[in-house]
Amino acid sequence: MINLDSMALKFNFSPTEKKIELFLLDQTLLPQTEKWLLIENLNQMIEAIQSLRVRGAPLIGVAASLYLAKESLNVTNKTDLLKIADLLYEARPTAVNLMNCLDRMKKTICANMDSNFSAEQIVQTAIELFNQDVNLCDQIAANGAELINDGDQILTHCNTGGLATAGVGTALGVIRRAHEQGKKIHVYIDETRPLLQGGRLTAWELQKLNIPCTLITDNMAAHLMSLKKITKAIVGSDRIAANGDFANKIGTYSVAVNCYYHGIPFYVAAPFTTVDSKCKSGNDIPIEQRRPEEVLGAIGNFGIATDGRILDKIIWAPSGINVYNPSFDMTPEKLTSAWIMDQKVFTKKDISEGCFL
Amino acid sequence: MINLDSMALKFNFSPTEKKIELFLLDQTLLPQTEKWLLIENLNQMIEAIQSLRVRGAPLIGVAASLYLAKESLNVTNKTDLLKIADLLYEARPTAVNLMNCLDRMKKTICANMDSNFSAEQIVQTAIELFNQDVNLCDQIAANGAELINDGDQILTHCNTGGLATAGVGTALGVIRRAHEQGKKIHVYIDETRPLLQGGRLTAWELQKLNIPCTLITDNMAAHLMSLKKITKAIVGSDRIAANGDFANKIGTYSVAVNCYYHGIPFYVAAPFTTVDSKCKSGNDIPIEQRRPEEVLGAIGNFGIATDGRILDKIIWAPSGINVYNPSFDMTPEKLTSAWIMDQKVFTKKDISEGCFL
Repeated sequence: MINLDSMALKFNFSPTEKKIELFLLDQTLLPQTEKWLLIENLNQMIEAIQSLRVRGAPLIGVAASLYLAKESLNVTNKTDLLKIADLLYEARPTAVNLMNCLDRMKKTICANMDSNFSAEQIVQTAIELFNQDVNLCDQIAANGAELINDGDQILTHCNTGGLATAGVGTALGVIRRAHEQGKKIHVYIDETRPLLQGGRLTAWELQKLNIPCTLITDNMAAHLMSLKKITKAIVGSDRIAANGDFANKIGTYSVAVNCYYHGIPFYVAAPFTTVDSKCKSGNDIPIEQRRPEEVLGAIGNFGIATDGRILDKIIWAPSGINVYNPSFDMTPEKLTSAWIMDQKVFTKKDISEGCFL
Repeated sequence: MINLDSMALKFNFSPTEKKIELFLLDQTLLPQTEKWLLIENLNQMIEAIQSLRVRGAPLIGVAASLYLAKESLNVTNKTDLLKIADLLYEARPTAVNLMNCLDRMKKTICANMDSNFSAEQIVQTAIELFNQDVNLCDQIAANGAELINDGDQILTHCNTGGLATAGVGTALGVIRRAHEQGKKIHVYIDETRPLLQGGRLTAWELQKLNIPCTLITDNMAAHLMSLKKITKAIVGSDRIAANGDFANKIGTYSVAVNCYYHGIPFYVAAPFTTVDSKCKSGNDIPIEQRRPEEVLGAIGNFGIATDGRILDKIIWAPSGINVYNPSFDMTPEKLTSAWIMDQKVFTKKDISEGCFL
């Protein structure tokens, strides 16, 4: 029996029974409810990705690969399995990790010459992708923690921790490692509208880890910077272009501009696999647009103070109002102080010398 | 019978019956419900101000003065009436308009030498303050509209229209006037977390006025600027210091920094009465801190999609998480392109020459 276990994913493989169980923590229900979903079919897996029940660029790639491994135990035809891979591929357009992981899986599927494939090898590859992500997170955390000083007050955006990866996380992994090293740090959490990954998920993780933190609305960060309450900012990324530009959760660019104006170091932390050298600059990275409903109110799981009931959606804007809802924005190399990765911390000089090409 | 009527306030005065009725539109219930509150006692009036049922620096000043006029018909003792004025004075600490209006009311109350006062004069002063605000708004709108060009895409923050003043508004009044002049403009509305004055109130007003607009979360503005979708930004103010620094709704400073970085003109629109020359710089303006609950979720009136029920409060953050919740921030003169006021549009040169002293 092989068991993989992370903050937001559980995978049980019985080689003798040829059976895989894949569980995902439904992140739309956090922090009020911790409910694990048993993923049994493709529609369910794609819905989980698109509805952000599973989210975070690295975790999406790992989860989709483990799901494909599960399918490989039942699907007998190579063409059918590759078709499933392609449908997973299209579930979210911005995160390059999903593409990378599925490319690796497809390579394994196609490794045999005939129309058969080795399910065992496919499961093995998916497990390797999980373990690889755990290791990449550890290396990013170790490299990034060296940049953190005692007394740092660190702003972060969205969620980049154990809920977004198979391991300790990227930006949040750096913060966690620095805390574990005994450095006295304080984290300011951008709530990250519209989907509140900061207010719901990062707040939940940091509380679990006992890391001192304060929740703010996204529009308060600049004010805190003017009061000299923020000494560093660290964010994650969904795709990094060859010139160092990168896509990340909407609002990241605003943080970067404000850090630049206030002279505050602004770091991005991500595995090197996030680099997509086919994208020359940020302009080549597709930006996913999401449905208006997310901006008209809040979607997720809410404990209602008046009667304690749990609701999944609220609307506060007038109906019929026009909405713009990009899921990501692009931060240029110019505004980025350094790229914290598993291999090392890349500098502007490294990038200008073509390290991402 | 004297009737005053604005988007968010109704005042009926019967001189023969010596009776005043003051109604406020409960802005915490917008846009789902349009409910008018009859204000009958001081606790109710102060609660309405503190809970933002009535809000907007100019409107708070006018509403408090009209309430004081109502009290003057019943209260017989000068000392008691002045005490009521002082309690209203303290309801919100940042908006200077409340202080200015009540100072004018107190002067009228004290105009007689003995312990009596003329209720008639007090009511008259309050009515003048209402009418003065209507005129100030019209003048601000006329001056500001000259800065707006055909094709402008204007970002605004919070709510500064008919719900925030007795007239057409300040920043939103400028936008409305430009639209009425036939200029083709498009407005981007910052939703303005945590209390959503943009997403709930400005969206409601612009929809009523048929002005083309798009609702965004606060953290999207910078991204839109990078895409060259925003050509100007206009905001209101709760207090302006002698050097041109000003306090406004939290998030204004972030907009200002982003405009500065992108070379986009950033205007503040307010009546000249918003200038508090006793404050040398923005550092002298007190910033009101509000309760954590506002950041932990959303407070107001929400139509729930799942069952259509209306709720007044939702919480999405984990309980016990630490929160920072300043109601305002301070934008320095450096980041401000011009100060649109009733007298004229003040330039940086005007201010450096001491126009606000």
